[in-house]
Amino acid sequence: MNAHTSLAHLLATQRETPQAMLDALKSRFGTQCSTAMAVREQHGRDESSFEAPPPSAVIFAESTQDVADAVKIADQFGVPVIPFGVGSSLEGHLLAVQGGISIDTGRMNKVLSINAEDLTVTVQPGVNRVQLNEEIKSTGLFFPIDPGAVASIGGMTATRASGTNAVRYGTMRENVLALEVVTANGQVIRTGTRAKKSSAGYDLTRLMVGSEGTLGVITEITLRIYPLPEAISAAICSFPSIEAAVRTTIQVIQMGIPIARVELIDVNTVRMVNTYAKLNLREEPMLLMEFHGSPSGVKEQAETVQEIASEFGGNAFEWAVTPEERTRLWAARHNSYFAAIQSKPGCRAISTDTCVPISRLADCLLDSVAEADASGLPYFLVGHVGDGNFHFGYLLDPSIPREREVAEELNNKLVSRALRLGGTCTGEHGVGLHKMDFLVTEAGDGAVEMMRTIKRALDPKNIMNPGKIFAI
Amino acid sequence: MNAHTSLAHLLATQRETPQAMLDALKSRFGTQCSTAMAVREQHGRDESSFEAPPPSAVIFAESTQDVADAVKIADQFGVPVIPFGVGSSLEGHLLAVQGGISIDTGRMNKVLSINAEDLTVTVQPGVNRVQLNEEIKSTGLFFPIDPGAVASIGGMTATRASGTNAVRYGTMRENVLALEVVTANGQVIRTGTRAKKSSAGYDLTRLMVGSEGTLGVITEITLRIYPLPEAISAAICSFPSIEAAVRTTIQVIQMGIPIARVELIDVNTVRMVNTYAKLNLREEPMLLMEFHGSPSGVKEQAETVQEIASEFGGNAFEWAVTPEERTRLWAARHNSYFAAIQSKPGCRAISTDTCVPISRLADCLLDSVAEADASGLPYFLVGHVGDGNFHFGYLLDPSIPREREVAEELNNKLVSRALRLGGTCTGEHGVGLHKMDFLVTEAGDGAVEMMRTIKRALDPKNIMNPGKIFAI
Repeated sequence: MNAHTSLAHLLATQRETPQAMLDALKSRFGTQCSTAMAVREQHGRDESSFEAPPPSAVIFAESTQDVADAVKIADQFGVPVIPFGVGSSLEGHLLAVQGGISIDTGRMNKVLSINAEDLTVTVQPGVNRVQLNEEIKSTGLFFPIDPGAVASIGGMTATRASGTNAVRYGTMRENVLALEVVTANGQVIRTGTRAKKSSAGYDLTRLMVGSEGTLGVITEITLRIYPLPEAISAAICSFPSIEAAVRTTIQVIQMGIPIARVELIDVNTVRMVNTYAKLNLREEPMLLMEFHGSPSGVKEQAETVQEIASEFGGNAFEWAVTPEERTRLWAARHNSYFAAIQSKPGCRAISTDTCVPISRLADCLLDSVAEADASGLPYFLVGHVGDGNFHFGYLLDPSIPREREVAEELNNKLVSRALRLGGTCTGEHGVGLHKMDFLVTEAGDGAVEMMRTIKRALDPKNIMNPGKIFAI
Repeated sequence: MNAHTSLAHLLATQRETPQAMLDALKSRFGTQCSTAMAVREQHGRDESSFEAPPPSAVIFAESTQDVADAVKIADQFGVPVIPFGVGSSLEGHLLAVQGGISIDTGRMNKVLSINAEDLTVTVQPGVNRVQLNEEIKSTGLFFPIDPGAVASIGGMTATRASGTNAVRYGTMRENVLALEVVTANGQVIRTGTRAKKSSAGYDLTRLMVGSEGTLGVITEITLRIYPLPEAISAAICSFPSIEAAVRTTIQVIQMGIPIARVELIDVNTVRMVNTYAKLNLREEPMLLMEFHGSPSGVKEQAETVQEIASEFGGNAFEWAVTPEERTRLWAARHNSYFAAIQSKPGCRAISTDTCVPISRLADCLLDSVAEADASGLPYFLVGHVGDGNFHFGYLLDPSIPREREVAEELNNKLVSRALRLGGTCTGEHGVGLHKMDFLVTEAGDGAVEMMRTIKRALDPKNIMNPGKIFAI
């Protein structure tokens, strides 16, 4: 795997945006079309450490029709389109590696309908997860999927995102019921219905979820939402070692305890978060946990987990009972990425995203921790360990090429280990630019060729976010 | 919608199996290849009411290699292949409407590996759901998906099946983690891993789940399994009306109570089941319910549901506490289809399969009951009502064409109503031959054309179970 060789290769395939196309866009979109360099540059990068020339224009779409018209113009000129939500991708999804225009869906930010009785909500792609929860709060319902960033629902759908609640509520794969999509020729289609299940033909919804903008632009999403639990309690438990924390998690999951969140934070990250958020968390590996249910159910779950933890040397739980305490706790977790970035001024993070079957979690994690420690590179480590998913963030100085090499070597070893253990190179961030070679190792040539065949059939001019997932 | 016109149209496209192909199959498969008429006829029908000429040969595959070789020969001659599990499809999936050979996977019936610690199991497609549960029983785990028939896991995957436990545990969509598939050119690919979640490229697993054999032959399936609940209790509750039973269900679901099963049985079906299974169930509409959890959790759930039921005039619960009582209860539910068939000797059933958002369940169901009552055609009605999914089975005398017309008219009205209410024409049986026109109405021309485009790209010779889901 050499992401930067691939990137150089891709950049050699840049397609020009002809002036006639820019004229057509200006004529159709007026001030909704910007070619200002600052705007283009802002849309040509994300939270990854990759760089590419910016898109040649940015369309601020305000409706499905806007998206469809922009795609039709792009189709006419054979120029790429790159959907943009809030720019929080970690894998280079938003980079115009083959040129083209960015379609910013940020103004499509309406919650279109709330069906509280059916536990569904339909939103435009620019709605972000925090806004969504704010807008449905009065119904007593919530949407649980929470990647670290305040991501857009469109982007979360396109990358098959998850987060801390996935251990109980599933990922975008399980929680997207239906979509509206603009296809590569600018046609608007709908996939799925609001019914909870269906056997009506190919599962186009799931095909679009996680397709990273390469098959179409998502313009509407119907999601499952959930009743706010009657009782919620959150707890922190510190452990003498990462291994003790991981073994506790494995046992909790194997017993089928419906824990809502179980997050590992290593001691490095605890220190970074303490500094960043002015907290006084005990500087040991810890699990952050949350229990949802009826008051007695929550109590029962917590007692069982506490027993398991103490068998592995975990300290007594520190409880966060009030909503304010819980919010503070989870804000600390969600801020860990930013806390880490700030711990080494000017650094960039290369974030790993392996996910393994839970029984292999200790094997995968502990050897990788040893390798990271031995490398001397600073790092943070957080994990949705209940799902077998964890992230190292290697913090590198972009001006020292050797640090990037070390980080990539660590990542390579980690991914190889995860694949050997029956896991995946990406649990929730997507393939983007960074994991194309890993994808081939993981899925095999045959499966990747099947993906390519689908891509070629649905996007014959290769204009939908080309150069991501695989090179055509 | 006129399923029989479509069928006639399809039958006009029958492809001959050349003698040279039969010779090649005989030479490769010896006694594993049968051209005996009785064998061919058995493989050319299912539980649907459709008829077509039988396949020209049946291959009894014993390995993935057998399947791959059979498909390669079929590819060479451009002749269809139809995967066969146990023959319990209700939608004509197994009929050789365009000719071709049947690949019987019944001998591929091994549980390949049980990963109890990860709550996963990997099986061959010919394993049936009862056998699977038998083989994993000693681990304290179970596989919850239970269509009425003792279906094969391969067939259940291909039709995106579900059943009575889906309200809590999801359908095959949520419970298939990974697959091995023989593609249209005889290549063997793998999709997914044993990791609980992944964002690694297109979701080929979900694309194959529910593809009804039209994109490949499934040769290995990795499934999620679950710890047997610490406590289980089942209860029957009779209601003064279907409406009262349905309103109870709606409230239970909307409150987020994690009920494991909630099945509606109408009074017709209660009578049929009483006769067939020599039971003395009270002859009123009833809900069969099951609660899974810790002893106190189960008690809490049951108390809440009992309160809701009594508000709607439901009788006191009759409990089935021992495993034997529970088995008897659920056997009655699972036998309702056969009980109904036996209630009118010589009849065939046309089974409906609509699924609607839960808030629309009463609207959809009650009007359809009124129409069925008015038609004079005998019928049964059972429903996975917690998911908004229910089945009418119209019992018709195949020698009286008018009865089929009446049944199809009732089904048409029901499906139109379900679609109007935001639902789907098929919750779990699949499209097969019967719902092709409904699929277009439901999904729209654009989405169906996308499905066709994928089909044409992955199966350019149209040999994988052609004529199902849509005509190419």
